[in-house]
Amino acid sequence: MTIGLDRLALNQATVNTAGLREAVTLCVRHDIPAIGLWRDRVAETGLAGAVAAVRAAGLHVSSLCRGGFFTQPGPEDAAGRAAARADNMAAVFEAAELGADTLVLVCGGLVPGSRDLGLARRMVADAIGELVPQAQRLGVRLGIEALHPMFCADRSVIASLGEAVDLALNFPADAVGVVVDTYHVWWDARLAAEIARAAGRIVSYQVCDWVLPLPTDTLLGRGHLGDGVIDFAPVSAAVAAAGYDGYIEVEIFNADVWAVPPDQTVRTVRDRFATVLGH
Amino acid sequence: MTIGLDRLALNQATVNTAGLREAVTLCVRHDIPAIGLWRDRVAETGLAGAVAAVRAAGLHVSSLCRGGFFTQPGPEDAAGRAAARADNMAAVFEAAELGADTLVLVCGGLVPGSRDLGLARRMVADAIGELVPQAQRLGVRLGIEALHPMFCADRSVIASLGEAVDLALNFPADAVGVVVDTYHVWWDARLAAEIARAAGRIVSYQVCDWVLPLPTDTLLGRGHLGDGVIDFAPVSAAVAAAGYDGYIEVEIFNADVWAVPPDQTVRTVRDRFATVLGH
Repeated sequence: MTIGLDRLALNQATVNTAGLREAVTLCVRHDIPAIGLWRDRVAETGLAGAVAAVRAAGLHVSSLCRGGFFTQPGPEDAAGRAAARADNMAAVFEAAELGADTLVLVCGGLVPGSRDLGLARRMVADAIGELVPQAQRLGVRLGIEALHPMFCADRSVIASLGEAVDLALNFPADAVGVVVDTYHVWWDARLAAEIARAAGRIVSYQVCDWVLPLPTDTLLGRGHLGDGVIDFAPVSAAVAAAGYDGYIEVEIFNADVWAVPPDQTVRTVRDRFATVLGH
Repeated sequence: MTIGLDRLALNQATVNTAGLREAVTLCVRHDIPAIGLWRDRVAETGLAGAVAAVRAAGLHVSSLCRGGFFTQPGPEDAAGRAAARADNMAAVFEAAELGADTLVLVCGGLVPGSRDLGLARRMVADAIGELVPQAQRLGVRLGIEALHPMFCADRSVIASLGEAVDLALNFPADAVGVVVDTYHVWWDARLAAEIARAAGRIVSYQVCDWVLPLPTDTLLGRGHLGDGVIDFAPVSAAVAAAGYDGYIEVEIFNADVWAVPPDQTVRTVRDRFATVLGH
C-alpha cells in the first residue's frame, strides 16, 4: 500500500511552540495539505481569524481537538455539568465553522471521588447522545478517541478501540465515529479485528510512535514515526481496508520534539511520513 | 461476598527489603497463611533452605514469580534461547519443590530489534507449549499474567486478560492458567466477560491499587488497597464466580512502601485486605 504525502496532516500540537498562524504557515511552506487544530490555539487567534487563516492558506482542517471530559461530578454540581455541556456544544460549532473532518472527543476519566468505571462510561454515553443532535444539525462528526489504558483513571475511561467502536455504534454513523491513534491502540491483540468492525466509522487516523523509556510525564512519551516500536504498516492497511481514505495526522507530544525549531520538526514529520508510512 | 483473612497471601515483593526468611517470619507473626515467592530471593536462600523455611513455618506458597521472558532474539542466538528454556525448566522445578500453586509467567516484550507483535506472540505460545510437558510431569500450573498495556513493548506482549485466556485455552487446564492482577487489568471494559471466560483457569488472583500520578519508574506505581482508584468488589466477585477460591496475593511495587519498616507494611496489608476486600 502506498500512502502519499497528499494525505499528510500536521496536528498543531506537534509544533507546540508555534501559534496557529505560524503552524498554518509551516504547512504551506512544507506543502502539507491539512492541519489538526486545538481549541485553545483557535481561541487565541479567535475563531473567525482561525477560519480565515486556514482558508486563505488553502488548508483543510482534518480535526479539531477536542471535546469531551464528560465525567463531571454528580448531580450536586449541576452548574459544572451545564458548563461542560455548553463547552462541548461550542466545540461542535467551532468544528463546523472550521470545516473540520471531526471533533475529537477525549471522554474523561473516573468521576472525581468515584471508583465506578461503569458510572463514568454511562455518563460518557449519555453526554455523547446529548451532543448528537447538535452534531447532525451542523454536519460535524464526533470522533471518539480510545486513549491508552494508562490514562483510564484520569483522562479517558474509553480505553480500547473496541470500546470506542461499541460506543459509536449506538449512534448514527453520520454523527459519531472513532479516532484510531496508533500511540493509544498499537498494543491491542484485537486491533485488526476492531478496526475492521469500525468500517465506515473511522473519522480520523492519527499517528506517532511509542518510544521507550516512558518519560516522567507519560503524556509526553510520543515520538516521531520510526523512533519507536510501532509497526505502522499493518495498522495503516487495516484502516485502509476499513474504508478510511482521509488525512493521516501526525500528532506528537514530546518535550524534546518541542525543543527543536518548528520548521525542522515539520521537515522531520514530512520525511518520516514518506519513509515510514509511504512504504 | 465476604473474603476472610484466611485467604490472604503476602507476595514477598511487597516487603522488598526483607529476605526470604524475614518475609516468612513476618507472615507467621501476622497470621498470614500463604506467601508468594520470587526466584531471586529463593536463590539467595537456596532452594532447599527456602522449602524448609516455608514448611517449618506452616506456610503455603501461593505463587512463584516468575518464569517467562520468552521473546529472545532470533535463531542466530540459539545459545540465548537454550539458556532461557533451561531457566524456565528450572523455574518449573523450583515451583514444584516449593509446592507453589502456580509459576507466574511474564511473557516478554517485543523481540529485541523487532516491531513484530505477531512474531513475539507466536514465540510466547511456542515457548509455553515447550514448557507444558515439564509442568504436567511435575504437577505445576503455569500462570500466564497479562501485564498492563504500558508494558507491552518491553515486558509482556500479552497485554490484556482476554489475550491471556485465548493463549491458555490452547493448552490443558491442568498445566496452563491465567493470573488476574488488578493493577494490570482493572481498566478493561471486557474484564468481567474475560474473567468469566477464564472459569477453571484462574491460578492466581493478585491485588494492589492503581495510584496517581504514575511515578517516573512506571513499574513502581502500585499502592496499598484503598490508596488508589480500583474498585475491587466487582473484580473479586467475578473471580469468585469463575470458581477461584484460592489465595489472594497482595503484591505491591512502590518505593514509598518499601521505605516503610516491613513489619508496618505487613500490618497495613492485613488491615487493608480486611477493610477493602473483606466487604
